[in-house]
Amino acid sequence: MYLCAMLENKNQSRTSLSELGEFGLIDHLTSGFKNKQSTTVHGIGDDAAVLGGIKNQLLVTTDLLVEGVHFDLGYMPLKHLGYKAIVVNLSDVYAMNGEAKQVTVSIAVSNRFTLEALEELYAGISLACEMYNVDLIGGDTTSSKTGLLISVTAIGEAKKENVTYRNGAKEGDLLVVTGDLGAAYLGLQVLEREKQVFAVNPNEQPDLEKYSYLIERQLKPEARQDIPDLLEKLGVKPTSMIDISDGLSSEILHLCKQSEVGCNLYEDKIPLDPQVISTCEEFELNSTTIALSGGEDYELLFTVAQEDFPKIKANPSLSVIGHMTAKNEGVNLITRANQKIELTAQGWNPLKD
Amino acid sequence: MYLCAMLENKNQSRTSLSELGEFGLIDHLTSGFKNKQSTTVHGIGDDAAVLGGIKNQLLVTTDLLVEGVHFDLGYMPLKHLGYKAIVVNLSDVYAMNGEAKQVTVSIAVSNRFTLEALEELYAGISLACEMYNVDLIGGDTTSSKTGLLISVTAIGEAKKENVTYRNGAKEGDLLVVTGDLGAAYLGLQVLEREKQVFAVNPNEQPDLEKYSYLIERQLKPEARQDIPDLLEKLGVKPTSMIDISDGLSSEILHLCKQSEVGCNLYEDKIPLDPQVISTCEEFELNSTTIALSGGEDYELLFTVAQEDFPKIKANPSLSVIGHMTAKNEGVNLITRANQKIELTAQGWNPLKD
Repeated sequence: MYLCAMLENKNQSRTSLSELGEFGLIDHLTSGFKNKQSTTVHGIGDDAAVLGGIKNQLLVTTDLLVEGVHFDLGYMPLKHLGYKAIVVNLSDVYAMNGEAKQVTVSIAVSNRFTLEALEELYAGISLACEMYNVDLIGGDTTSSKTGLLISVTAIGEAKKENVTYRNGAKEGDLLVVTGDLGAAYLGLQVLEREKQVFAVNPNEQPDLEKYSYLIERQLKPEARQDIPDLLEKLGVKPTSMIDISDGLSSEILHLCKQSEVGCNLYEDKIPLDPQVISTCEEFELNSTTIALSGGEDYELLFTVAQEDFPKIKANPSLSVIGHMTAKNEGVNLITRANQKIELTAQGWNPLKD
Repeated sequence: MYLCAMLENKNQSRTSLSELGEFGLIDHLTSGFKNKQSTTVHGIGDDAAVLGGIKNQLLVTTDLLVEGVHFDLGYMPLKHLGYKAIVVNLSDVYAMNGEAKQVTVSIAVSNRFTLEALEELYAGISLACEMYNVDLIGGDTTSSKTGLLISVTAIGEAKKENVTYRNGAKEGDLLVVTGDLGAAYLGLQVLEREKQVFAVNPNEQPDLEKYSYLIERQLKPEARQDIPDLLEKLGVKPTSMIDISDGLSSEILHLCKQSEVGCNLYEDKIPLDPQVISTCEEFELNSTTIALSGGEDYELLFTVAQEDFPKIKANPSLSVIGHMTAKNEGVNLITRANQKIELTAQGWNPLKD
């Protein structure tokens, strides 16, 4: 179980970071990384990394993860955090209908972190680089006054004709989502509840089996590397695309705003995992609200022309959940009771007090 | 004077960040930026930025600046900080003998920062983007538990045959440095002294005129954008290159280690500004030590073949300060008294306690 694994401290050795110094630390943490991409000419170890032989358009995206804001090391093992920090950035490359190739990772750490803790973090980064076939080509390592901060920049490529923006959706296009929604948010709720239970009674061993999918979606999210490839195979060029990091509702509003269209989203079409449904019942939460506002699903949301419907309808990874309308019709949820409710962004806002 | 300017708070309006939210904040801060580079296809506003038409090799470098570690807002005005955050990254691109084209900027801010404070920061970022002809193409804005953190990734280009690594120096090559050394570090010493004086007597107006160059080098450093261009015009291809961020000594050791050579550095050849010499006397510091270990000069250090000496000797921007030797001869300072002293890295180590 995740929670049990996270509570163990298998590695008892503690090496202070000041023993290594900045250069020694970078060398040590990145020594096991090997470059796999043909466009990586020179990775870590100079003033800048060098990429060459780039024939396609280049995609560049960056994200900052801050302890106490984006993650809580109380239930997020460092290896998972490293993995997640890479994955959330790659997701943005896939959301442009591209292929991720390289990442840079910078970290700021306070002196409460040991070398062994950072090795765990980099083990997760390394695993993600392996799984997603990307090269770690650079970064910076420095100290912070409090906590851990991770800044990742991801670089990808896409053929010019395949690059998909947020602003290309047309009236009449179908709205499609990959996978299912809401699980990552519920995973966080489960972990937060267990953390409180553990604080009261450290000897209680929680049974988290029935939340396994939810917890995995929170602690070890995967990005949809497969989708640009799948769309190419199906012969479908999406008209617009975005990844779902802040909740379905917020992302639909982004697509509509930038494409200058409206949207009807059908409540009964939103894909939910059975664990999401049963856990929403247990927590007395509305599963539609969770899917709309939960966030951190890292699924892809895109639009396709209606004539592409036959190409996508049989695919188990893809759900048609609505269609785009004229801008003046607004952005609406059509409920199971056939009521029309205006969608508002309830996506998670990290700058709200 | 810098210190006076910094003590004034001209802008009295205070807008809390939570009033805008994350998306509103990014839009607001970056709305005045215009793309200038032909390779910038799409900048801010989608899941990733898109670059196109890249014919050369691409250079990628990233740096993290942390409040209380890399800067002190007590004497570093936010506009200067924004400017410096860009410049220190561009310096790494120039150190590869390339041209900087794009940057991404991510910031984490605590709620003690107002919108007006971040506008100042972005005014500095904007000014640097103008001065160095680079496009701001992306970034992330989030909250932090304490203080300000800035993560910048810079992207540049260079012809494949021009890219200059740290590892190409050969025995017999000349060691060349641009500009002069030690001023930025002394500027910091002056500012720290004045901060203490101010704490004791806030009414005392310091006369900083005689330190103006030192303070400018600390608060508004410039990167040597001109050097790759100059070298091309002179017909000189450096054999190795690095930028001086951690002090001359540390950078020479990097070049020697990666190139597997030794070096003789001549004390009497190290270029010093008259303000460095006079202020070292006043502070009772050894100017050679300051040049070797001060750091933050953002000059370029490179090696050239001996036959290129006629091409560079007359240039006021370039000083030949030594030559590379066989590896087993070690890395040495030849003093004015003709003594040979082994060089050690005393470059600033931000992870030391």
